Amino acid sequence: MTVTAAKGFRAAGVAGGLKEDGREDIAVVVNDGPEYSAAAVTTSNRVYAAPVAWTRSAVSDGSLRAVVLNSGGANACTGEAGYADAVATAHLVARSLDVAAADVAVCSTGLIGQRLDMRAIRRGVGMALEALTDEGGKAAARAILTTDTVPKTAALTGDFTIGGMAKGAGMLAPQLATMLVVITTDASVSRETAQLALDAAVEMSFNRIDSDGCMSTNDTVILLANGASGYRPEPEEFTAALTRVAQDLAAQLIGDAEGASHDIAIEVTGASSQDAGLAVARAVARSNLLKAAIFGNDPNWGRVLASMGTVPQASAPFDPDAVDVIINGVTVCRNGGIGDPRENVNMDDRLVTIGIDLKAGAESVRVLTNDLTYDYVTENSAYSS
Amino acid sequence: MTVTAAKGFRAAGVAGGLKEDGREDIAVVVNDGPEYSAAAVTTSNRVYAAPVAWTRSAVSDGSLRAVVLNSGGANACTGEAGYADAVATAHLVARSLDVAAADVAVCSTGLIGQRLDMRAIRRGVGMALEALTDEGGKAAARAILTTDTVPKTAALTGDFTIGGMAKGAGMLAPQLATMLVVITTDASVSRETAQLALDAAVEMSFNRIDSDGCMSTNDTVILLANGASGYRPEPEEFTAALTRVAQDLAAQLIGDAEGASHDIAIEVTGASSQDAGLAVARAVARSNLLKAAIFGNDPNWGRVLASMGTVPQASAPFDPDAVDVIINGVTVCRNGGIGDPRENVNMDDRLVTIGIDLKAGAESVRVLTNDLTYDYVTENSAYSS
Repeated sequence: MTVTAAKGFRAAGVAGGLKEDGREDIAVVVNDGPEYSAAAVTTSNRVYAAPVAWTRSAVSDGSLRAVVLNSGGANACTGEAGYADAVATAHLVARSLDVAAADVAVCSTGLIGQRLDMRAIRRGVGMALEALTDEGGKAAARAILTTDTVPKTAALTGDFTIGGMAKGAGMLAPQLATMLVVITTDASVSRETAQLALDAAVEMSFNRIDSDGCMSTNDTVILLANGASGYRPEPEEFTAALTRVAQDLAAQLIGDAEGASHDIAIEVTGASSQDAGLAVARAVARSNLLKAAIFGNDPNWGRVLASMGTVPQASAPFDPDAVDVIINGVTVCRNGGIGDPRENVNMDDRLVTIGIDLKAGAESVRVLTNDLTYDYVTENSAYSS
Repeated sequence: MTVTAAKGFRAAGVAGGLKEDGREDIAVVVNDGPEYSAAAVTTSNRVYAAPVAWTRSAVSDGSLRAVVLNSGGANACTGEAGYADAVATAHLVARSLDVAAADVAVCSTGLIGQRLDMRAIRRGVGMALEALTDEGGKAAARAILTTDTVPKTAALTGDFTIGGMAKGAGMLAPQLATMLVVITTDASVSRETAQLALDAAVEMSFNRIDSDGCMSTNDTVILLANGASGYRPEPEEFTAALTRVAQDLAAQLIGDAEGASHDIAIEVTGASSQDAGLAVARAVARSNLLKAAIFGNDPNWGRVLASMGTVPQASAPFDPDAVDVIINGVTVCRNGGIGDPRENVNMDDRLVTIGIDLKAGAESVRVLTNDLTYDYVTENSAYSS
C-alpha cells in the first residue's frame, strides 16, 4: 500500500533527531532497477526551497536512483548555505548507494527560514540507509509527516503495481500543496511517458484540491519507474492507473487537512470549458465566508454566488441570472434567485456537495476543499511551518 | 462627524422592524441643495444586488437628492421581484420629498437570497422621513450596521466640510467590501469632479483594505455635494480632503473587521510600479496561514515569502533572493534568507507592520488587513449574511 508495494523498491523511515519529539523524520526510497525512469512536478511558487532547486536539476535527465526526504525543516529561504546542505544530503545517499549524486532527489518539509540541523540529517540518513528493506514503505510514509494526523498511502496492482505515499495537511492549494508525494511503479515506462503521465495525473488530482489557497515553497511529486514487473503498459493505461493512485492520495490529503470538520466537493457543470469551470470552482473553494458557513452547517448559497461573481467574465462566461446551486441535492438557488428552502438541506454528513450549474456549456469540473474551523486557526497560529 | 456634519443635509435612522432585535435598520440621507452633484462607486462583483442595479442607473446623470439604506436584508439574488422592491423603496422616498425616484439611491445589506420584508421597509421609511433632522447622522450611521461592533463616522472641516458614515465588518476586499458608505459635502463640486474625486479617493482607501478576500454583492460608496458652503475648491484640494475622510473610514472598517485581534499594515517598498506593489501586498494580505500566525503572535516571515512567491513575475518583477522583510522594525528576512532573530520582534501592539522591500523600483504601497481568529470563524459560521 505504499512506495514499497511495487517490485524492486526499498525504503526506510527513521528518527534522526530533527523532530524534537523523537518521531521519524528521515525517509529514503531507493529504486533497485533494472530501469530508472523518473519524473517530477514541483511547486509553481517563485520562492522555492533549496531541495526543490536541487531536485529539478537532478530529475531533468528523466532518471533517478533514490529520493531522500526529511520533515522537521523546509530548508527554504536559507540561501547558498541551505543549497549546499541539500547537495550534501544527496551526496550522502549517493555515496552509500554508489550512484551519482545527480541521481538522488531531495525533499524537505517543515519550518521555512531555518537552516537544517545537518548533524541530525547525517545521523538519520546513515540510519535510514542501514534500515532499507522492501517493507520499509510504511515507516517512510510516517517519516515525512508534519501536522498530518495519519500517514497517507495508496497502491494499485494488476499487470504492474503502482504505490505511493503523501504528506500534506494545510497549505493545500490548486497549484500543489505543502505536499510531498513519492509514487513508485514496477511498470516499464519510458522517461517521456513518465513525465507526461505524471503531469496529467497531477492535474486531475493534486491540482484539484484547494484547502486554503496558500502554495508552499517545497511541494514536490516524484515518480520512479523500474520495469521490474516486465510489463510495459500503453501510455493511456499507465496514465489512468497513475491518476487513480494520485486521486486516492489527494482525497486523503483533503480529508486530513488541518482542523477540517467537513469535506466540500464543488462540482461545476455546464461550464464553457475546463478552465472556466476550474476558475469558478476555485473561487468558491477559496471563500473563507462560505467555508466558515459550512463549518456552521449553514448551506449559505448567497456566499456561493458572491464568490462566483468575483470571477471575470473573460475567465468564465456565464449568466448570473441563469445559475443553479444544488447543496447536498437541494436546489437552493434556481436561475440566480431563491430556490427550495435551505432548511431542506441535510448537513449531517462529513461530505458536503455543492453543485453549480452554469448553463453555459458542457464541461464539468470537480474540486475538493474543506471548511474553515477553530482547529484551523489553532494549528496555524501555534505551529510555525 | 457624520453625514450631517456638512451644511444642508438631513438624515435619520430608525427601527422599522427588519432586524429582529429592534435595533435601527432604516436610514435616509437627504441633500437639501442648492446643488445636487453626486457620484458612486459600486461592487465589481458580477453578482450584484437589486439596489446596486437601481443606484447605478439613478446616479448615472451625476445627480441625487437622497439615499435610502437598510440593513437586515441584502435584496441580492432576489430576481425581478427583488428589483421591484428596490424601485418601490426609491419611490416611497421620492414621493415624500417631491423629487424624481431616479434621484433617490437605494442601498441594502444583510442576508443574500431572501426577499425584503416590504411592510417593515414601508413602515421604517415612513418613520425615517418624519424624523429627518440636521443632527440625524449618528442615528443613520447606527441603522446601517450588521455585525459591526461600532458605528463608523468621519468628518473634516475647513473652507468646506466633508462628513461620512460607513458600514462594514468582514467581507472586506480589495475591490470593495460588504460596505456601504455615504459621504456628504457642502463644497461646490461639479458632477465630473465629484466622480473623478470619488474614484481616486476609493482607490487609495477602500480598495487598500483586504480582510478576507471576499467581495460583496452590495458594496456601494456614494458622494453627495450641495455647494451650501459657497466654496468651490480646486479639484486637487477636494480630492485630497475626500481621500482623507475615506481613509479615516477605511481604517475604522479594518479595525472593526470581524473577530480581528491584530490590524496588519503591509507596506511594500521598492516596487517597480503601483500595480506590482499592490499585487504583492494583496497576496500577502490574503494568506490565511500568515494571518493565523499573526493571531498567534508569530512573526512568521516564511509565510510572507511563500505568499509573495505566488505572484507571477509578469505581475510583480522582483528577485526572491533580494527581498527584505521587516516585521515591527526587525529585519527578520534579509536578501531572501535568514535575517535577525524573530524573537526580537515585539508583537504586543494591536498594529503589526510588515515591511517588504522588493528592491525592484521606487514605488510604495500600503494595504491594511487583519489576523485570522477564532472569532472570525464564530461570527461567520453563526451569522447568515
